[in-house]
Amino acid sequence: MSRWEPNARGRLAEAALALYGEQGFDRTTAAEIAARAGLTERTFYRHFADKREVLFHGTDMVRELLARAIADAPAGAAPMDAVGTAVEALGAVLQENPERVRLRDTVISANAELRERELTKLAGLATAMADALRGRGVPEPAASLAAETGIAVFRTAFAHWIREPHGPDLPGVVRASMDELGNAFARRTPA
Amino acid sequence: MSRWEPNARGRLAEAALALYGEQGFDRTTAAEIAARAGLTERTFYRHFADKREVLFHGTDMVRELLARAIADAPAGAAPMDAVGTAVEALGAVLQENPERVRLRDTVISANAELRERELTKLAGLATAMADALRGRGVPEPAASLAAETGIAVFRTAFAHWIREPHGPDLPGVVRASMDELGNAFARRTPA
Repeated sequence: MSRWEPNARGRLAEAALALYGEQGFDRTTAAEIAARAGLTERTFYRHFADKREVLFHGTDMVRELLARAIADAPAGAAPMDAVGTAVEALGAVLQENPERVRLRDTVISANAELRERELTKLAGLATAMADALRGRGVPEPAASLAAETGIAVFRTAFAHWIREPHGPDLPGVVRASMDELGNAFARRTPA
Repeated sequence: MSRWEPNARGRLAEAALALYGEQGFDRTTAAEIAARAGLTERTFYRHFADKREVLFHGTDMVRELLARAIADAPAGAAPMDAVGTAVEALGAVLQENPERVRLRDTVISANAELRERELTKLAGLATAMADALRGRGVPEPAASLAAETGIAVFRTAFAHWIREPHGPDLPGVVRASMDELGNAFARRTPA
């Protein structure tokens, strides 16, 4: 059937996000999403487990992107450099379609259950980066520390970028945030 | 009625945690918790909105503890020092009753919904620390960066402490983790 439904997944995702933005996540049904995309409800459920899943189906791709960026960092790169490269790469991917990313953030921010799910997703990204760092020989707890900190920096940079629609690009904000945190640690009283 | 129910809240919380540990969170009812505590179900609902709330009722206290620790840091303290003092203080409070903290962690780890709620709670703690830092005159995004990083360090330290029941105390693990992250940033390639 898929030859009659070119890019069904992408069309459904786009229709869902548009409807969530127009009428709210709670008030939107899978049938409406399918109708907007010119597809059947059955097709919707072939691609997504539920309407919530539409907002989070990119997680696997993001996890792989972060893991690959860390694995591909130069052999001698410090863990925080590898993590910095990875979260900047994530910023670059999101910067490719800022309107979609901002609309998705608006939908998620308006719904407590979606916000909790997003936090869980971000925690999973930290785990993936820690795994990739251990794959480079970084021991624990250094690997988890660097990975969790990378996500903390990304979260902060992302929130700043959302608040400043006419500010610098997301990868730049991520890089500046990582630098700023490095400076904050340099001003810390030595142990 | 409260004169006939001394420390009802504490008794309910203890009974709930014991039952969640013995038979699982999902299989435990408010009526069972009340019975175990020698109280009525009505009393349970006077103290807690639902059985989930029993696991998270300490959040307000923790939020205040972190905010106060940051407010009370010496006038010239660097933001990462203030945050370090705060998350160490949280570690010290949890270390006062490690068995209860470990049992609570076991219950939460076994349940996806509780894990999501815990992440939301931790995000709220970062927000409270950022507010307290801004109250000291730390500007954004430095305040949010330091606060989110403090929670990332605490999460990592806590996970390590949970895995090593015979290892060092939680405040010591938190302090060592903060030092280790400082070293990791020192090894980063300068911007």
